[in-house]
Amino acid sequence: MAGSSIGTIFRITTWGESHGKGIGVVIDGCPAGLPLTEEQIQPYLDRRKPGQSRFTTKRAESDTVEILSGTFDGRTTGTPISLLVRNADQHSKDYSNIADKYRPGHADFGFDSKYGFRDYRGGGRSSGRETIGRVAAGAVAASVLKELGITVQAYTRSIGPVSIETFDASVIPENKLYMPDTAAAEKASAWLEKCMKEQNSSGGMIECVIKGMPTGAGDPVFDKLDANLAKAMMSVGSVKGVEIGDGFAVVSSVGSDNNDAFRIAENGHIEKASNHAGGILGGISDGSDIVIRCAVKPTPSIAQPQQTVTCSGQPATIEIKGRHDPVIVPRAVVVIEAMAAITVLDSLLTGMGSRMESVKKIWLDQ
Amino acid sequence: MAGSSIGTIFRITTWGESHGKGIGVVIDGCPAGLPLTEEQIQPYLDRRKPGQSRFTTKRAESDTVEILSGTFDGRTTGTPISLLVRNADQHSKDYSNIADKYRPGHADFGFDSKYGFRDYRGGGRSSGRETIGRVAAGAVAASVLKELGITVQAYTRSIGPVSIETFDASVIPENKLYMPDTAAAEKASAWLEKCMKEQNSSGGMIECVIKGMPTGAGDPVFDKLDANLAKAMMSVGSVKGVEIGDGFAVVSSVGSDNNDAFRIAENGHIEKASNHAGGILGGISDGSDIVIRCAVKPTPSIAQPQQTVTCSGQPATIEIKGRHDPVIVPRAVVVIEAMAAITVLDSLLTGMGSRMESVKKIWLDQ
Amino acid sequence: MAGSSIGTIFRITTWGESHGKGIGVVIDGCPAGLPLTEEQIQPYLDRRKPGQSRFTTKRAESDTVEILSGTFDGRTTGTPISLLVRNADQHSKDYSNIADKYRPGHADFGFDSKYGFRDYRGGGRSSGRETIGRVAAGAVAASVLKELGITVQAYTRSIGPVSIETFDASVIPENKLYMPDTAAAEKASAWLEKCMKEQNSSGGMIECVIKGMPTGAGDPVFDKLDANLAKAMMSVGSVKGVEIGDGFAVVSSVGSDNNDAFRIAENGHIEKASNHAGGILGGISDGSDIVIRCAVKPTPSIAQPQQTVTCSGQPATIEIKGRHDPVIVPRAVVVIEAMAAITVLDSLLTGMGSRMESVKKIWLDQ
Amino acid sequence: MAGSSIGTIFRITTWGESHGKGIGVVIDGCPAGLPLTEEQIQPYLDRRKPGQSRFTTKRAESDTVEILSGTFDGRTTGTPISLLVRNADQHSKDYSNIADKYRPGHADFGFDSKYGFRDYRGGGRSSGRETIGRVAAGAVAASVLKELGITVQAYTRSIGPVSIETFDASVIPENKLYMPDTAAAEKASAWLEKCMKEQNSSGGMIECVIKGMPTGAGDPVFDKLDANLAKAMMSVGSVKGVEIGDGFAVVSSVGSDNNDAFRIAENGHIEKASNHAGGILGGISDGSDIVIRCAVKPTPSIAQPQQTVTCSGQPATIEIKGRHDPVIVPRAVVVIEAMAAITVLDSLLTGMGSRMESVKKIWLDQ
Repeated sequence: MAGSSIGTIFRITTWGESHGKGIGVVIDGCPAGLPLTEEQIQPYLDRRKPGQSRFTTKRAESDTVEILSGTFDGRTTGTPISLLVRNADQHSKDYSNIADKYRPGHADFGFDSKYGFRDYRGGGRSSGRETIGRVAAGAVAASVLKELGITVQAYTRSIGPVSIETFDASVIPENKLYMPDTAAAEKASAWLEKCMKEQNSSGGMIECVIKGMPTGAGDPVFDKLDANLAKAMMSVGSVKGVEIGDGFAVVSSVGSDNNDAFRIAENGHIEKASNHAGGILGGISDGSDIVIRCAVKPTPSIAQPQQTVTCSGQPATIEIKGRHDPVIVPRAVVVIEAMAAITVLDSLLTGMGSRMESVKKIWLDQ
Repeated sequence: MAGSSIGTIFRITTWGESHGKGIGVVIDGCPAGLPLTEEQIQPYLDRRKPGQSRFTTKRAESDTVEILSGTFDGRTTGTPISLLVRNADQHSKDYSNIADKYRPGHADFGFDSKYGFRDYRGGGRSSGRETIGRVAAGAVAASVLKELGITVQAYTRSIGPVSIETFDASVIPENKLYMPDTAAAEKASAWLEKCMKEQNSSGGMIECVIKGMPTGAGDPVFDKLDANLAKAMMSVGSVKGVEIGDGFAVVSSVGSDNNDAFRIAENGHIEKASNHAGGILGGISDGSDIVIRCAVKPTPSIAQPQQTVTCSGQPATIEIKGRHDPVIVPRAVVVIEAMAAITVLDSLLTGMGSRMESVKKIWLDQ
Repeated sequence: MAGSSIGTIFRITTWGESHGKGIGVVIDGCPAGLPLTEEQIQPYLDRRKPGQSRFTTKRAESDTVEILSGTFDGRTTGTPISLLVRNADQHSKDYSNIADKYRPGHADFGFDSKYGFRDYRGGGRSSGRETIGRVAAGAVAASVLKELGITVQAYTRSIGPVSIETFDASVIPENKLYMPDTAAAEKASAWLEKCMKEQNSSGGMIECVIKGMPTGAGDPVFDKLDANLAKAMMSVGSVKGVEIGDGFAVVSSVGSDNNDAFRIAENGHIEKASNHAGGILGGISDGSDIVIRCAVKPTPSIAQPQQTVTCSGQPATIEIKGRHDPVIVPRAVVVIEAMAAITVLDSLLTGMGSRMESVKKIWLDQ
Repeated sequence: MAGSSIGTIFRITTWGESHGKGIGVVIDGCPAGLPLTEEQIQPYLDRRKPGQSRFTTKRAESDTVEILSGTFDGRTTGTPISLLVRNADQHSKDYSNIADKYRPGHADFGFDSKYGFRDYRGGGRSSGRETIGRVAAGAVAASVLKELGITVQAYTRSIGPVSIETFDASVIPENKLYMPDTAAAEKASAWLEKCMKEQNSSGGMIECVIKGMPTGAGDPVFDKLDANLAKAMMSVGSVKGVEIGDGFAVVSSVGSDNNDAFRIAENGHIEKASNHAGGILGGISDGSDIVIRCAVKPTPSIAQPQQTVTCSGQPATIEIKGRHDPVIVPRAVVVIEAMAAITVLDSLLTGMGSRMESVKKIWLDQ
């Protein structure tokens, strides 16, 4: 089924496999008149591309984006924006190991069950490279949000047993783990060295904060803003849990602690005195920061021998050699940020007609 | 925007407010030929209706469902199934308290931000009664799944600090907290008594297990089965976190522990030797049980005085009197079960044409 | 599949069968703050209800609409508006004739092919009563459009060989054929008398004009405004052709005649000097009247003996007795008007964010 | 808004402008296991590319398609198929004439109204080149349909005053006007010569026939197969009317002539004795040929001087020089065929779960 699109008015459709000719995305519904060039998109792709540190695969990819359509004179025209990244490093290589066996923790078995066969080269469509289209589209969404005074920032909150203890936004881009705490980043690096030595990998947690969000975005029932964010996040490969605001901590909380009191801010607006809700009440943005956390599983590709079966149903052992990221989290940070940007932008665009007075404001002005 | 529908082929649309004339759902895309009567749906509604125990509101509602369309001679016809539950207990009552003030932890402020005003009677559209349509549709989905050998069961995993320690499915319906552990249910009851005495409320956790799921359902990118489940769960009011399989525990896990080995089952099928993944790999069902957990926040309506503001922006204090459930979890159990059933059924129906051979099987048979 | 909904932001879902408990519609995405009562909707239903003239069936139905949700204090709240019309005249009656045989020109055979069986009572879901939900939703859409200065009016353009020769809007509601030409209406009545005497029925044509439409609504590719109108019109049972503006006359036209010159109107706006395009250029409204015409086939239920087969595949003869409308057109006029209103309103709501400046106008104003 | 996609399960998304870097389409939801190479797609593109005859523009484009994703070992994998055609002939050229003025009959004015500005080079997104993505996707759809024994063929039925009088499928590809009647093609050529001499252009009609269609495809209400076909057809630029079966001729028809009797075919199946309905009854395919006709307006680009206005609202005259097709019909034939193939394939894929027995056939087989 057509499951490669997300969004209602701002709608993206991604395509591409790890070892096909390229990866891309079509962004439909971007408002016209937004200044947009490849220079705004490339930095987002650079944050996820391989080879940034010793904890990422060495695959040689520049991941250079090309805008194929949808802009004119440096601005979006309102028509579909097609973005293309050609795959460079798709050397023919011996895939017989993974062609014949199901890698534990990977999508291989699911693909064969669903489709009858699969492109096994580098994981095919279920490769991490699938996220290139998401990130490129996220860069465009972030550009729109910026014009509305909204910023989206994701960072690594923990890697294995190491969690951040301080928050300094300025250091996030300075350590290759994208942690806002230099000391924690150093401890996490040591932990990852240990994992690598043991031919193992580590899980971690990403946090994403959206600031400057206006009130009134999101819908009250199935398209709650948090529901759409949860889908967007869980759709990123390796994410196994999503929480908003206090998240799972609410389980052992009581109402008097979990409720956020309302008060009048200095600018006269209504605001919440605390933010246990994480910026969303009843599915609708409440003006506080939107706070999302995602649990990311350890890289399933590990060099240790693992029990598995062949595609034809014979017991087998598999050892996944080659250089693999010992942790998914750092390169997924920008993917989470992208999905958050895409989702909140769509909520803003779909919600423009929620009141008769807004509809009149747009259509009676002519 | 049109946010009151969910699903692609099996698509439900709910409507209704707490103190309007009724609550209902239209189920579109249910396969024809399913035996269906009100007797199959009513038990689901009875599980969520008020007045089942001293921990639930006393509002007098029979929540009797009427099938208005879509069946003939006791079977579904393939056309939309419209289900109606009339509201009975919609007494005129003094709502000035909540009409003028924003209740902390409730959707009131969001609704006013989005729509300019709101139906404040009993929470209007953001009332817990909104879930009646979901539960009724879930009962229909569960009937279809049953014919495919698939069962969905949700239960209370924890209430406040009390978690289950044993699992006995037979006791779930026997305690009004829907816990599979009688001893834990007793402890949880004591905890809730304490909360009520302190004019407070408690959070909790619901777990849902889907058994008998075939392999190959779900999509690899945005419509991953876990992504759609996450949306469905987070769209339930008060759910603040969702996890699949090991969920947030993957954060501190390593690959060798988190990966599930494949092996050959006694029946010759391929199966996983463990289930850290929670039954979904790469967004596609892998044949193991699908395991979902949801964090549910404490009931925001508490009798303690809380700081808030009036709709016109004046500081105020609010005390929410009347009998309110001190915990949302028990009545939400069947809602979670319903949303899970709806979501997996839709994944099965949308995925029928994933292979040319399946398409031929249906259309060349005539 | 879920084919009972139409629209993206203003989205309606209809349900109900001819001889089930009732017929209804859920309208999702209606802007909040619109004054709405049953009194605005009922006149639309009255225009399509049976028994208005000797050319319509005598089935005794008041078709009284009840608003079940979505309004508060007489205004829409932005939440789903559920509208219900109970079926009154659903007498048990002998349907063995049509239960066992496929009526020529009817949907019976298609339903059995698709679903394996059908509710044959009065045509079930494919009855003309299915349009009640459309008309009720159209009344709501028309109320929104009215606030934007947009009017939608449909009327009968021809019945059998009789076409209108003059246009007087004031006489449309005065003759039961909804023709804007009293003389033509009289000729058409005589033609219908003849058809009835011959146990036959007649086709006809409906024209619909939308005035006051702003420029810039509709999309340039698949969701062209004319494409969505064509779908909406063709989805009405018995419509076999749709045309916009000059329609099929363009086939033998030349460019210099078919192109509409642009000029400056008295109010300084740009306008077209003629309207061969029917108000839509490149899929986008151009500010001229939108003009749509629909070809409606003759009522398939005729009392003459017709050759057919039984459901079990035996040759048979069928005579469809009872009082049937000898022409579908007059009662379909309001259905066409409703579908047009629903479609243009959705185009206005989905198009609100086409420019960055519009997005800022709504979201930076807070 | 996101209006560049069509279809529910077989869903295509097109992108690209006349003078951008290229044109493309992403096809999502194509069943896995279909043999597919560029050689199957290219012939469809060749049928619409410029320069085939003296009646088409000389723009030098090879319109060579590249499959960027979605196939492996020569077969579809079930993942998105991305198809790219690079624009070759995008010479810088003086567009000041059309940049500043609204061309009558073109989309220019609509685009500016909607988006505030437009890519005026060669019509930008509203160029005929937009159909390249449709045609490429249609070739893929046709390949799937072929495996189900379904063929789709479109041809020119009339050009200006010249209509076909005989039908010989074999001559369709042999005359550059794609007419199934060589004599008519010659007369039409003469007519077009006359138009060109007069700096004018001609309208025409395309007919499309779908053979081998199984019964039971399509939905009974809004997603009637004819409704979706009408949208697909009317979404093709220049189409101003669509009809199914007898179409507009039903207006003056009577029921006894318009109804199609049912009978038993030689193979024992139920069939219609005639086909006034054009293969669709009640929105569902009835097993007869599906017959669609589209009215195509004259090419709006003509060299004659025309009255118009400048973008800044000044009266002006425009003469559109350069070589333009004097008729749109011949090159649109394959576009209509493509849209028909895409639409009926989607109806087949979305309808696979219409009966419980079909659902069991797919999911209980494992």
